[in-house]
Amino acid sequence: MRSKVSVIGAGFVGSTLAQRLAERDYADVVMFDIVPDMPQGKALDILEAGPVLGYDSLVIGTNDYADTANSDIVVITSGFPRKPGMSRDDLVKKNQEIVAQVTEQVVKHSPNCIIIVVTNPLDAMAQVALKVSGFPRERVIGMAGVLDTARFRTFIAQEVGASVRDVQAYVLGGHGDTMVPLARMCTVAGIPISQLMPADRIEQIVQRTRDGGAEIVKLLKTGSAYFAPSASVLQMVDSILLDKKMIMPCAVSLQGEYGFNDIFVGVPAQLGAKGIEKVIEIELTPEERNALEKSADAVKELIQVMGL
Amino acid sequence: MRSKVSVIGAGFVGSTLAQRLAERDYADVVMFDIVPDMPQGKALDILEAGPVLGYDSLVIGTNDYADTANSDIVVITSGFPRKPGMSRDDLVKKNQEIVAQVTEQVVKHSPNCIIIVVTNPLDAMAQVALKVSGFPRERVIGMAGVLDTARFRTFIAQEVGASVRDVQAYVLGGHGDTMVPLARMCTVAGIPISQLMPADRIEQIVQRTRDGGAEIVKLLKTGSAYFAPSASVLQMVDSILLDKKMIMPCAVSLQGEYGFNDIFVGVPAQLGAKGIEKVIEIELTPEERNALEKSADAVKELIQVMGL
Amino acid sequence: MRSKVSVIGAGFVGSTLAQRLAERDYADVVMFDIVPDMPQGKALDILEAGPVLGYDSLVIGTNDYADTANSDIVVITSGFPRKPGMSRDDLVKKNQEIVAQVTEQVVKHSPNCIIIVVTNPLDAMAQVALKVSGFPRERVIGMAGVLDTARFRTFIAQEVGASVRDVQAYVLGGHGDTMVPLARMCTVAGIPISQLMPADRIEQIVQRTRDGGAEIVKLLKTGSAYFAPSASVLQMVDSILLDKKMIMPCAVSLQGEYGFNDIFVGVPAQLGAKGIEKVIEIELTPEERNALEKSADAVKELIQVMGL
Amino acid sequence: MRSKVSVIGAGFVGSTLAQRLAERDYADVVMFDIVPDMPQGKALDILEAGPVLGYDSLVIGTNDYADTANSDIVVITSGFPRKPGMSRDDLVKKNQEIVAQVTEQVVKHSPNCIIIVVTNPLDAMAQVALKVSGFPRERVIGMAGVLDTARFRTFIAQEVGASVRDVQAYVLGGHGDTMVPLARMCTVAGIPISQLMPADRIEQIVQRTRDGGAEIVKLLKTGSAYFAPSASVLQMVDSILLDKKMIMPCAVSLQGEYGFNDIFVGVPAQLGAKGIEKVIEIELTPEERNALEKSADAVKELIQVMGL
Repeated sequence: MRSKVSVIGAGFVGSTLAQRLAERDYADVVMFDIVPDMPQGKALDILEAGPVLGYDSLVIGTNDYADTANSDIVVITSGFPRKPGMSRDDLVKKNQEIVAQVTEQVVKHSPNCIIIVVTNPLDAMAQVALKVSGFPRERVIGMAGVLDTARFRTFIAQEVGASVRDVQAYVLGGHGDTMVPLARMCTVAGIPISQLMPADRIEQIVQRTRDGGAEIVKLLKTGSAYFAPSASVLQMVDSILLDKKMIMPCAVSLQGEYGFNDIFVGVPAQLGAKGIEKVIEIELTPEERNALEKSADAVKELIQVMGL
Repeated sequence: MRSKVSVIGAGFVGSTLAQRLAERDYADVVMFDIVPDMPQGKALDILEAGPVLGYDSLVIGTNDYADTANSDIVVITSGFPRKPGMSRDDLVKKNQEIVAQVTEQVVKHSPNCIIIVVTNPLDAMAQVALKVSGFPRERVIGMAGVLDTARFRTFIAQEVGASVRDVQAYVLGGHGDTMVPLARMCTVAGIPISQLMPADRIEQIVQRTRDGGAEIVKLLKTGSAYFAPSASVLQMVDSILLDKKMIMPCAVSLQGEYGFNDIFVGVPAQLGAKGIEKVIEIELTPEERNALEKSADAVKELIQVMGL
Repeated sequence: MRSKVSVIGAGFVGSTLAQRLAERDYADVVMFDIVPDMPQGKALDILEAGPVLGYDSLVIGTNDYADTANSDIVVITSGFPRKPGMSRDDLVKKNQEIVAQVTEQVVKHSPNCIIIVVTNPLDAMAQVALKVSGFPRERVIGMAGVLDTARFRTFIAQEVGASVRDVQAYVLGGHGDTMVPLARMCTVAGIPISQLMPADRIEQIVQRTRDGGAEIVKLLKTGSAYFAPSASVLQMVDSILLDKKMIMPCAVSLQGEYGFNDIFVGVPAQLGAKGIEKVIEIELTPEERNALEKSADAVKELIQVMGL
Repeated sequence: MRSKVSVIGAGFVGSTLAQRLAERDYADVVMFDIVPDMPQGKALDILEAGPVLGYDSLVIGTNDYADTANSDIVVITSGFPRKPGMSRDDLVKKNQEIVAQVTEQVVKHSPNCIIIVVTNPLDAMAQVALKVSGFPRERVIGMAGVLDTARFRTFIAQEVGASVRDVQAYVLGGHGDTMVPLARMCTVAGIPISQLMPADRIEQIVQRTRDGGAEIVKLLKTGSAYFAPSASVLQMVDSILLDKKMIMPCAVSLQGEYGFNDIFVGVPAQLGAKGIEKVIEIELTPEERNALEKSADAVKELIQVMGL
């Protein structure tokens, strides 16, 4: 049975996600944006690739939230992008208002949906969506860790000349400067990376991962990453709609896990038909524990800035 | 054995094509652009989606033609895009110079490659690439008909509520106003569309297909189509590199077929490992014959404008 | 949301279908057989390929119909296979009893399912399933034409050196000797095959298609075809569960269409979420009309043999 | 560019592998068997699924080794299957003669191919193929560990309710009773399984993995596993022909690694265009070291039995 996924915000992350979903061919896609005509144009372009690629997904571009009604999943990508030189924190107030408005509309038309938040600063925006929606925490999930992990894995694979499929990586905490990559749990074909490269090289790769979004922004000059972010959301959607129960790092509103309460922190979570079906608790070293607390502190600051 | 495909021009058609090729995972991809850093940024973003989607394709962004060396296929997408209100013909002189320069570099580094031209005005630009490259006509192909056909099929499928897979459509001639859709050969599950809708509705759909590119431009306001165009090129690349021998409408430099000589006209061609392996000649009605000649005349005019 | 498909009969068609469904990864699969342990063994083998191929489908082998409860689709493959020298008609009484028993159990546990019948002689067995189930005709479909068409397309593609994707073919009527291939509607890239090969060569290919099942039986000596039959069922399942609304030749219990009533005849039908959503009526030549009536007569004879 | 893969032995592993390769659509497939007509029948059946599934792979069944000429990879599956109650060792002499004859013919027609051995007892048969072929060890690889690992991962995923994609497992040593699963390196989403289940449950799963082939044989009664084995070979072929450089456990003729010489032992190896491109050495505990030596001893015994 076909599912329905709505994507709010038809920028590059949103529209590339719509493309990816259409190609999966098991869900119909609604792409909403406030800009007139633009989501319609992108949806039509995606539709017109269908005969070549063989998919029959219905793809609709719209400026009317009513078209998103009864979605199984709604992905919120709306918000101002991070510009070169702009910190994630600068974005917070601008995007708080947007995400709040969007969430209100989303919930009105799809009261039973699962919300995936992509807007930055991620952990803070997920908090906004959770609060405004009034949803249980199982149904409001932030996308960050899948992307951060993908970048980490890419860099390690390049370093050792391995297939990306063989690289496992682990990232906790917030998206950005306070990211907590668990280097000791990163492996290539099961072999800890500490046996494959010196500690300072690992540290360089960890730092490059932290700066992964900024690296792309710096190269593109007039935009930010969207190929890998949209793929990351796709994996979350797949695991939910196909009930694959995959475990991946997500921003989750913790309720006691890792000692945190009512704050979004990037942790491994199992995603299935009900949304977040399980939070995985990993034993942390004291050092990792410290880093995770710093990461949570940064989120708390933003929440104060937002007055939540 | 992995193949190598280079994409010249890292705009939206070029970079979305690079994404699609990377996901096929049987070819390495080089994306060239004269803009510094930008192709590198897009290539990195595509690479970073690899761990999520499971592909290991090497994707390189570059400002140096040397990186394209020994490509099996080179796709030329460089050129100024069509702006709202601008006719395809306005583009011709601006883009002639670009395509000539690009072709020169391409041939220098990949003397045995097959060139697929995407730059508009398509038929004229293919002529430029053929002349500058000195390649036999088998190895210089223009992409237009696959896209036009895909649009035609999309509109028919919507009209009759069918799967796009069941709609066959046929388009000859140039890309744009002089396109020659063979409505009598369009079928839905083998049933001629003339049995499924009235003649004037067919004519509306034909006209919408002719204006397909402009429709997207009008909606997007600040850009043109790239999802369906890049998918269309992908199908041509697949048929060549995997030697699938699929027949699809391509801009081919005719050598006597359909009564034309040394001019690019959109006709059905079989694509395989050697490029164009066969031109398919269809019996035309006098009316279709007229339309095809008008279409060729339009290309001839551009060729005169370019002084070729 | 995951669907559930049950396959009754874990022979080669049934188990290869289970493999194909598992690989699609959007439905859970139950494989039933009366032979103890065997469906469990095949299901386990299919499951164990999951980590390599990346699917998480639940695949269950069982000897208990209760495990098939609440299936969205049930595919009936049970029955004695056709042995070399055995006509389809010889099978009818043996398999009538089996299909009746199976249908009773299927309906008991999945009263809202859609049944796809694969057991031969196909048209007669579909009639048995329709009668025993008491289902509306929308929910009892026979698989034959997709397979016959696939064979026809394969032979034509080989003959002209084309991609199978470019060959359209049309087959009406019963599965086997009375099959009615509509050669005039067969095309390669839209070109009628009558322009591509002489009439007697077409007739040879048509005859080979009619004998397609027997050709495989004769080569294998101890078995019958299952790779292409299982792929054909997969296409029907895809069109139903993903609501693709593809049109394909199916055995349908006609209610006035083509002038027949209450008899299964192979005709083009649109398959979607509700099963058969539309029967497509094609204008036939008097010759084709005759052949279709002969085909229906053969089915009527079997129905009399079965005493239905 | 299309590759060519030959499969020797058209039994269920061989023919299901041919099916899987045909569906990948980047290589042509030759299936050889000494039984007349049978490989032709299976190849035709696979071909006839092409129009439905969209592939154009050439699939040939043959009784003539000449048709395998110039293959990039040859997979040897020929040999008597293991019957219930029969140990792997019983098979050795029967299959030694077969594999030697096959290898001779393979090398004669494809002197530059890479050989993948599937015939049991695996490690001994790989030794036969290496010796008879005279190939460097890079081009003679045994398939066992991918399958063993897949089974191990399946059982762990079921035990903890996780996606198979999240389970990493490690198996060294011979295929069968002397298999050396490295339980300490098995993880679910990076978490060691020792944190997820008690030691005795792990031991049960390890034992079930060792008996994985026998479990299927016991259930099927008249056959052995082929869905997961053929998928495992596919992964090796993919990594070689697409030069993915994936690391997977393979039977490799060691040359000093792990302290062994000129004996096939299951170890992690990186597979790329040149075959085995790297053997990965993992530090073993004394206990694992002992188990690996026992495993090697078992292979040595077989080699003595064979008089190599």
